[in-house]
Amino acid sequence: MSQFTEYRREFHRYPENGWREIRTSARIAEILTDMGYQCMMGPDVVDTDSIVHLVRPSIEEMQAAKERAIAQGANPEFVERTQGVSGVIAQFDTGKPGPVTAFRFDIDCLPYDEPEKSGYRPFDEGFISCNSGAVHACGHDAHTAMGLGIAARLLEKKEQFTGKIRLIFQPAEETFGGALSIIAKGHLDDVDRFIALHVALSAENKPLPSHTICCGCKDFLSACQLDVHFEGRAAHPCGAAQEGKNALLAACSAALNIHAIAPHEEGLTRVNVGEMRAGIAPNTIAPNAFLCIEYRGETPAIAAYLRSRIFDILDGTAKAYGLTYTCDDYGEVPAGKSDDAMMEVIGRAAAKVPWFEKIYFEGNVGGTDDAAAMMTAVQSHGGIATYIGIGCDTTQPVHNAEFDIDEDCIDAAIDLCLHALTEIHSK
Amino acid sequence: MSQFTEYRREFHRYPENGWREIRTSARIAEILTDMGYQCMMGPDVVDTDSIVHLVRPSIEEMQAAKERAIAQGANPEFVERTQGVSGVIAQFDTGKPGPVTAFRFDIDCLPYDEPEKSGYRPFDEGFISCNSGAVHACGHDAHTAMGLGIAARLLEKKEQFTGKIRLIFQPAEETFGGALSIIAKGHLDDVDRFIALHVALSAENKPLPSHTICCGCKDFLSACQLDVHFEGRAAHPCGAAQEGKNALLAACSAALNIHAIAPHEEGLTRVNVGEMRAGIAPNTIAPNAFLCIEYRGETPAIAAYLRSRIFDILDGTAKAYGLTYTCDDYGEVPAGKSDDAMMEVIGRAAAKVPWFEKIYFEGNVGGTDDAAAMMTAVQSHGGIATYIGIGCDTTQPVHNAEFDIDEDCIDAAIDLCLHALTEIHSK
Amino acid sequence: MSQFTEYRREFHRYPENGWREIRTSARIAEILTDMGYQCMMGPDVVDTDSIVHLVRPSIEEMQAAKERAIAQGANPEFVERTQGVSGVIAQFDTGKPGPVTAFRFDIDCLPYDEPEKSGYRPFDEGFISCNSGAVHACGHDAHTAMGLGIAARLLEKKEQFTGKIRLIFQPAEETFGGALSIIAKGHLDDVDRFIALHVALSAENKPLPSHTICCGCKDFLSACQLDVHFEGRAAHPCGAAQEGKNALLAACSAALNIHAIAPHEEGLTRVNVGEMRAGIAPNTIAPNAFLCIEYRGETPAIAAYLRSRIFDILDGTAKAYGLTYTCDDYGEVPAGKSDDAMMEVIGRAAAKVPWFEKIYFEGNVGGTDDAAAMMTAVQSHGGIATYIGIGCDTTQPVHNAEFDIDEDCIDAAIDLCLHALTEIHSK
Amino acid sequence: MSQFTEYRREFHRYPENGWREIRTSARIAEILTDMGYQCMMGPDVVDTDSIVHLVRPSIEEMQAAKERAIAQGANPEFVERTQGVSGVIAQFDTGKPGPVTAFRFDIDCLPYDEPEKSGYRPFDEGFISCNSGAVHACGHDAHTAMGLGIAARLLEKKEQFTGKIRLIFQPAEETFGGALSIIAKGHLDDVDRFIALHVALSAENKPLPSHTICCGCKDFLSACQLDVHFEGRAAHPCGAAQEGKNALLAACSAALNIHAIAPHEEGLTRVNVGEMRAGIAPNTIAPNAFLCIEYRGETPAIAAYLRSRIFDILDGTAKAYGLTYTCDDYGEVPAGKSDDAMMEVIGRAAAKVPWFEKIYFEGNVGGTDDAAAMMTAVQSHGGIATYIGIGCDTTQPVHNAEFDIDEDCIDAAIDLCLHALTEIHSK
Repeated sequence: MSQFTEYRREFHRYPENGWREIRTSARIAEILTDMGYQCMMGPDVVDTDSIVHLVRPSIEEMQAAKERAIAQGANPEFVERTQGVSGVIAQFDTGKPGPVTAFRFDIDCLPYDEPEKSGYRPFDEGFISCNSGAVHACGHDAHTAMGLGIAARLLEKKEQFTGKIRLIFQPAEETFGGALSIIAKGHLDDVDRFIALHVALSAENKPLPSHTICCGCKDFLSACQLDVHFEGRAAHPCGAAQEGKNALLAACSAALNIHAIAPHEEGLTRVNVGEMRAGIAPNTIAPNAFLCIEYRGETPAIAAYLRSRIFDILDGTAKAYGLTYTCDDYGEVPAGKSDDAMMEVIGRAAAKVPWFEKIYFEGNVGGTDDAAAMMTAVQSHGGIATYIGIGCDTTQPVHNAEFDIDEDCIDAAIDLCLHALTEIHSK
Repeated sequence: MSQFTEYRREFHRYPENGWREIRTSARIAEILTDMGYQCMMGPDVVDTDSIVHLVRPSIEEMQAAKERAIAQGANPEFVERTQGVSGVIAQFDTGKPGPVTAFRFDIDCLPYDEPEKSGYRPFDEGFISCNSGAVHACGHDAHTAMGLGIAARLLEKKEQFTGKIRLIFQPAEETFGGALSIIAKGHLDDVDRFIALHVALSAENKPLPSHTICCGCKDFLSACQLDVHFEGRAAHPCGAAQEGKNALLAACSAALNIHAIAPHEEGLTRVNVGEMRAGIAPNTIAPNAFLCIEYRGETPAIAAYLRSRIFDILDGTAKAYGLTYTCDDYGEVPAGKSDDAMMEVIGRAAAKVPWFEKIYFEGNVGGTDDAAAMMTAVQSHGGIATYIGIGCDTTQPVHNAEFDIDEDCIDAAIDLCLHALTEIHSK
Repeated sequence: MSQFTEYRREFHRYPENGWREIRTSARIAEILTDMGYQCMMGPDVVDTDSIVHLVRPSIEEMQAAKERAIAQGANPEFVERTQGVSGVIAQFDTGKPGPVTAFRFDIDCLPYDEPEKSGYRPFDEGFISCNSGAVHACGHDAHTAMGLGIAARLLEKKEQFTGKIRLIFQPAEETFGGALSIIAKGHLDDVDRFIALHVALSAENKPLPSHTICCGCKDFLSACQLDVHFEGRAAHPCGAAQEGKNALLAACSAALNIHAIAPHEEGLTRVNVGEMRAGIAPNTIAPNAFLCIEYRGETPAIAAYLRSRIFDILDGTAKAYGLTYTCDDYGEVPAGKSDDAMMEVIGRAAAKVPWFEKIYFEGNVGGTDDAAAMMTAVQSHGGIATYIGIGCDTTQPVHNAEFDIDEDCIDAAIDLCLHALTEIHSK
Repeated sequence: MSQFTEYRREFHRYPENGWREIRTSARIAEILTDMGYQCMMGPDVVDTDSIVHLVRPSIEEMQAAKERAIAQGANPEFVERTQGVSGVIAQFDTGKPGPVTAFRFDIDCLPYDEPEKSGYRPFDEGFISCNSGAVHACGHDAHTAMGLGIAARLLEKKEQFTGKIRLIFQPAEETFGGALSIIAKGHLDDVDRFIALHVALSAENKPLPSHTICCGCKDFLSACQLDVHFEGRAAHPCGAAQEGKNALLAACSAALNIHAIAPHEEGLTRVNVGEMRAGIAPNTIAPNAFLCIEYRGETPAIAAYLRSRIFDILDGTAKAYGLTYTCDDYGEVPAGKSDDAMMEVIGRAAAKVPWFEKIYFEGNVGGTDDAAAMMTAVQSHGGIATYIGIGCDTTQPVHNAEFDIDEDCIDAAIDLCLHALTEIHSK
């Protein structure tokens, strides 16, 4: 097993949710420092003011994350350097004139429980998540390992390159604000070439298996998340049912009607009521309900259509049940498109990696990644960008708690990036 | 303020949820012991085997309840005597032949947060709940104080009585199993007369205000609670929506259809989906949902009708969404009826208490109380029973977190019971 | 088979819906005239201005009803005398001083199709409905026959009676306005005793079988009917789905939420969305929806609660789907109560009819009958009234298209009424 | 106004629904015969056995359609020749060797009522539909006129062409079976080039305005229509509500859940419950409900996914409400794709028509047209096909009852086709 696959398993074992990736950040920085890199950490990486206030951890949560990180083997010195803020940037600066290339590796996990069951490799081979409500079910453990591999391999070929190569280990892709807070700090301002990678995308509407690649994606959806809190009135369901204002039923009706929103002829729409929490006791009409709604549209206009329909339904349902509601808005993750020129670079690089037997030019994200915001930032000043899909066999689709991957893709992805860098940064 | 009103405020300040009433039990036993009673506690009061396994606290929870009780001023000696099981019985045994009368006082609270706001007396006068998720919103604090008052007043008139008077301080009325576990222990086997009291019932379909009383109730509903767990399949709502099996939407559809179950011509039906918890993350199709359903029927046949409809809906919804589900059944609290003969005793007693200006013969529970099980137990061997409604002005209906009462009803209820006992137990 | 049972079968064969009972009225008048009665018909019976405008037949419909009546054997002379308005009153005036007693017999049918199937007596014995969308599924055929029987039997005992006995054959009980339009004409103004009968009610929450009777009912519900028309916007469900405003889905959501309205602690509530018509074509988002809603409450306050909740849901649903709606209101049928004194008269009469083996004092309507308006009218000037349940075995519950009865109850009911009249009108 | 625009207005005035286009067919045949064409009609055009039995008119309906056609000015001789079956084919046979080109013009209308209101041109200028429940809201009136125009213009240039040109006037595009029944008759077996035209499609997700064209479409969705009949049980909503099996509520729940079916990552999904009819009376629990469901998927696999989800929901809802249901299946209209080679022919032709100022290569159907079945039939034996979008300004989107068009597109489309035929059929 390669060193980088070992790293992947280590990150898999100690997953951390968005803005809590303290052990992960400390470990990345420690490894990179050992290689010889100088690392920026925490507040030097992310503009903490631009973290959506709704998701920013409290002082207590930050302290708890730091303590757990140390308890789970993080180097206290690097934990201290995070200042409680996750994210790491390392730069390979050749000192020679040349382009600036930036990579984005996302490092956070998803809030599920990983199943402890025989026959599931992370369990059988001892790298199952040891944190409850945390699992790398979207491959960010592998992405992080790829970033470390690229860092290591760059050093081997130090003299061949020109310009600068920036490795950005980004927190909070799954929640909100990771990419935006790094952009706000200016780390994309001078970037000429931008690359993000993701395992297990699709092409031609089929999942990409091992030995395939897509050189870029153009189908990012604009996404937004809303937390809705209905306030009703509790009452005894026998003694005074007519006095109640049933927030649970209202939330149920709203969720069904939101999922039944009509599609849009101009492009894809996606809505999901991902979470609901309602009620306080079995023998009490529920006075409160919380709904977490995510919507995505292929264009900003379509996203605006969905938003308008959702708020009509929320307003109408509140009226129907005599409720009030409040809504926390987590802001919008933008759409984005890969550049053909950058996709061609990747296509040529992939042709040089034997593991990739089938090369698709364009593939599908089939959703959202806040890397799109970084791509757009780079493109806004004339740079070019791509979002690569690294094919790999998986046990389950992404965002399933039992998601495991063909780890061979890690080394293949590292090779791929080295070939691409060789083309971009050769004298 | 009478001593018993002070006790009510103390219990109001330290509310404890069903099967966690350790401080409450210790305090009751301490006060009664100080009066001169011998108290049975914990496993001597309740048959722990008959506590529904679903609601029985774990060892850790019992330990925590005991620690909190001591931290909140309970006498450690009496806490120890609980053996982690709540409930107290004291008996006034005259040593003379005569009937056995039992009283039931329920002692548990409801799982809400009491509002800390000016203008609300418990807050203004410093007896607001200091336990989160716990509030005496159903008057059991007053019932407990009434029990202590009856105990104290009995001692004053010691010589006048014959037979035995048993004071049962019952845990877990709001959840399940309190009454049944005491019945199982045999404490109702020899009872000739049974009395339970409750503040704030209604008569002629109007809440009973202060200075009123109803001598008994016959409209107990048969009740049952089900915890339903739907299991679906998580999936990314863009990347693989068609792979998901959406347990959240299924639960919403089930809840609406359950609330839309048709009524029954033969008597009252009540259903309530009191709680719902579904989903794991905004960007994930919800793989799980929990529903807490309560249903009540005026007769066992009507309750069976509701049960059948609920399970048809659960089965059908699971089919519609490709889910499986499991169901925890908390068992049935039975219906019950007060005896006219016993209600007449109460009517005569009430006529002797000036505070009661208006006496209704029959009033309404408008729901369920597991005292009905005790009434039925007593009636099954020829005893007679009643469930009295003590009128009192309230700030809100029962089962509202802001429920406070006119405390004058406490002393009136104590007087009432002494008059009734005088009739029953006089030589 | 008695003559009156034969009449019942004739009416069963030619059922007519509310305000179209032309053949029925003509036939009643013809039979009564043949007996020697003078009959009031049509506009002399009902105040046509007080017929809810929404249900009043058009000139064309009246003409069609008259033509069909003649085609189905009605005497053209009596058809002409209806002037297109249904309803008949005959009076037995003894010429002697004494009380005025009025009977109400309802004569309309229900808008179903009667099943033509072997094993179903009306089919096997040839008296199945020959009008589509029309069936006597609520026993009014029997009530009408009872009225004719009482008329006939009165004549036999002519000399024994004092005062006046008025036989009111009322149209449109199932729809709206029958009773109100007769009250408006003044026919209840001088009535001292009022009796309405209905087959197949219940007592002690069980259907009344043959050989039983209940002497009165007190549980009439206040009822109201609303016709709701949602207006949305049509659109192609693929080509421009986002332009649609889906009235069908809105109606579905409204119907579910209306059926899920919480009950009321002070008395019974009943809601029914009885009809829905929505949409214009499969490949078009439905721009329109019609909902017919009926609600009933045990008191006017409860009915008002339901009305308020229904309109909140309609308003909220319209908001949620961007629709407008209009609502036709058919007005309210009131609640009502039988008088104990009148029920006692019936109890004594029933004791004299051997067919009645079991006599219940009070029974249950379990719903609504606009006879309640007549009862209230009589009571308002000091009269007394009752609504009797004539027990009879049935093939199906009322309002089922396959409802047939034990016809023996017809003669028993006639006997009963004669005994009651003997008590009331004896010298 | 050109002759062909006048024809369009005539067809607009006398719209006929699918399989009732008798006047339309007779009139087409009369005009073509007057031009000198020999026409095939009725059973020579369509294989009547392959008309879905569910939509085939009864003898009575056929007779009525024929009578109305004559009443509305159709030539009785041609009406007779239809033999009650709609559809016309005319062929321009040059007698010289060469390719066979077929055009498809659809001739049926939609089942709406056209609004009679000032400011709406068909009303103001007197060509509004004179048939209720029938309106050309999808441009088939214009398509028919285009076909007649092409026929006329071909005759002018008779000598220039080779091969054969077949003009197919197809019934029942909006309902089902039109294209399939013509294919079944073999009229596509020898076709080398196939062209269908439609006004008012879109390109780049925007409606095509006047002066634009798209040369072909590839995004046909596979479509299917289901008529669902739920059978429940009627009951009185007060008297015996618990006996009812409410088909109306079941249908509502099914409709909401069907509209909430998750999308599919591999391509577009569309579902529409277009019609609902439920219930029989306001005071009766609805024993029956009819739902008309249409679903479409971008691929057969996606359509199969939708079908499976729909039947799960129907099965589950039937279970939840204790109902049975039956389902009439109207069969599947297939997906299809235009050929690049044929689209290029159209592109070259469009460049020669000055009216077309903007030429899109590929546009969007955004839905379904059974022309896709003809395209697939032609492609299956090596022919090539396209489905052209003729841009035109409209008052409303298609499938809105107030749909009117910029009629200038008619002559432009005729010109376009003549240019295309000149390329295909020149010596």
